Amino acid sequence: MTVKQANPSKIMQIGMGFWASKTLLTAVNMGLFTHLAKGELSGQDIKEKLELHERGLYDFLDTLVALGFLKRSGLKKTSMYSNTEDTDLFLDTNKPSYVGGMLEMANNRLYPFWNDLEEGLKTGKPQNETKTGGAPIFEALYADEQKLREFLKAMGGIQMGNFMMFAKTFDFNNYKTHCDVGGAGGYLATQVALNNEHMSCVSFDLPPVEPVVLENIEIMGLSDRVSAQSGNFLNDDLPKADVITMGNILHDWGTDDKKMLIKKAYDALPKGGAFVVIENIIDNNRSENAFGLMMSLNMNIETPEGFDFSAADFDGWAKECGFTQTAVIPLTGPSSAVIAIK
Amino acid sequence: MTVKQANPSKIMQIGMGFWASKTLLTAVNMGLFTHLAKGELSGQDIKEKLELHERGLYDFLDTLVALGFLKRSGLKKTSMYSNTEDTDLFLDTNKPSYVGGMLEMANNRLYPFWNDLEEGLKTGKPQNETKTGGAPIFEALYADEQKLREFLKAMGGIQMGNFMMFAKTFDFNNYKTHCDVGGAGGYLATQVALNNEHMSCVSFDLPPVEPVVLENIEIMGLSDRVSAQSGNFLNDDLPKADVITMGNILHDWGTDDKKMLIKKAYDALPKGGAFVVIENIIDNNRSENAFGLMMSLNMNIETPEGFDFSAADFDGWAKECGFTQTAVIPLTGPSSAVIAIK
Repeated sequence: MTVKQANPSKIMQIGMGFWASKTLLTAVNMGLFTHLAKGELSGQDIKEKLELHERGLYDFLDTLVALGFLKRSGLKKTSMYSNTEDTDLFLDTNKPSYVGGMLEMANNRLYPFWNDLEEGLKTGKPQNETKTGGAPIFEALYADEQKLREFLKAMGGIQMGNFMMFAKTFDFNNYKTHCDVGGAGGYLATQVALNNEHMSCVSFDLPPVEPVVLENIEIMGLSDRVSAQSGNFLNDDLPKADVITMGNILHDWGTDDKKMLIKKAYDALPKGGAFVVIENIIDNNRSENAFGLMMSLNMNIETPEGFDFSAADFDGWAKECGFTQTAVIPLTGPSSAVIAIK
Repeated sequence: MTVKQANPSKIMQIGMGFWASKTLLTAVNMGLFTHLAKGELSGQDIKEKLELHERGLYDFLDTLVALGFLKRSGLKKTSMYSNTEDTDLFLDTNKPSYVGGMLEMANNRLYPFWNDLEEGLKTGKPQNETKTGGAPIFEALYADEQKLREFLKAMGGIQMGNFMMFAKTFDFNNYKTHCDVGGAGGYLATQVALNNEHMSCVSFDLPPVEPVVLENIEIMGLSDRVSAQSGNFLNDDLPKADVITMGNILHDWGTDDKKMLIKKAYDALPKGGAFVVIENIIDNNRSENAFGLMMSLNMNIETPEGFDFSAADFDGWAKECGFTQTAVIPLTGPSSAVIAIK
């Protein structure tokens, strides 16, 4: 046998990683952390509230303890479970810091769709609802106000850390107006306004989104400096502004549409204006940002032509379109802002 | 906002961990590492060999680079990919150290079955082929010699590190005979014989397994000290031996069957004999061995009553049955041997 120092533990850990993933996603999907945010519960309390069977009850809960997502005193029948600081903050649906919307979507849609990754790699075709004739996810969402709100909240939750960091670190001194294209719930526009008192911001998205945006602006007390504007970034010109942002928009589209959107941003900016793209930007050597690369595989699963890209890719498209220079600002985790100056 | 030091990166990393998992499993399933074991290949070579579409090709391969499972020189069209030391040793089907059999099964069976974890937790019922009226996995395996060989190889590959370590570290000085119950391909019996020249070993399993065991014994040149014996551990008495082992057998069964099997081992041992159970033994506090706890959830997915257990659980059952003392030997990763002395 040639097995010496080498051992297969990393291979097994990643290969079987879907077990931990699905255990956490299932807990989020059933609202476990939201129940526990109201106070600690015994195993039997949890069994009743989530309508669980006795068989897997303690294995499920103790897996979450071992993974660091729950705290526990006692054992089995004498157990009391509570949230950790992280799960209490980020996985309680009643807190604005909830990031579980993305994980609910991952549990209910992406996990099963990713079972067809091999087919996606062999055909280049999406492997989501559209494969079996279902409506594209965005159409289905925009047709159902409750689902739309949940989706916007999910996308906002997952991006909030990046939006806050960008709004605080980008130098807005030379600019007065900002438009966030594909602005969803208005989370980026409101963060820019909140952190830069001289800025007036517009959140630009499809008409069904507008009531949600207006509600968020109202709640945050920013109605004097943030507004909503309805439009379709594929068909319409973009609103003129000194700074134009797009968060997780470009990766949904193929190269031609990406260039078309970059050109629209260029046309809407003044000379010296900034076009800012916030995504999981892949490192130029494509060897470090695994999450960004897998987000690109996710675009293969979810869209007809979308893919994620590096700062070098973006620089090429931006210069081709007339922008004079580009820069990168690293944000949280695998995310960055890439910036093109007209 | 209350977001300060706390950040959701660990939650997101585990929650979205199925992406990395499925990417690696897909590569194993398509035989990528076996192709690369013959020498480095360009992205385009790989595209042809695996019949991949251009769209996701480099995202797929570069994800494996970023996760540490491939090496690469060049970029995209100029790229050359090769195995890392680990993937070359453990994921090339032509090497005896291959552990991918378990990962192929994870890709093709467990990943989709685990999508129904929530249903499994709510009903306590298996979520595998049997849910839709399919044959239980073991029956299907035993009916098809090729599949049976692959399964035995997979189980052997994944356990080999533990078997080698146990065979080398356990003190066999006071013993002469060994029987491995549910011995599959005979991997534990041959390792015990290989590392302990005074031992005579028997691998005990169902009749369809016997030809595979005999072949392995022959290949390893151990025909004088290792033999195969056919039988059913649920219905038959176990062969008498000084040391009786069971590797990943007890966790397939409910409490009553576990106790029945422990009693059979007791009856087959002489006074002072050792019963050894090699599994992903859960730590007594059920708060550390996450893999062992998830293996127990996997038994909920795969079996009507099976579950994994701690050394304390085993100690209780063994003493109840008449064993005088128990001990634990940690093996590789999440695995241990628990030992009961008659």
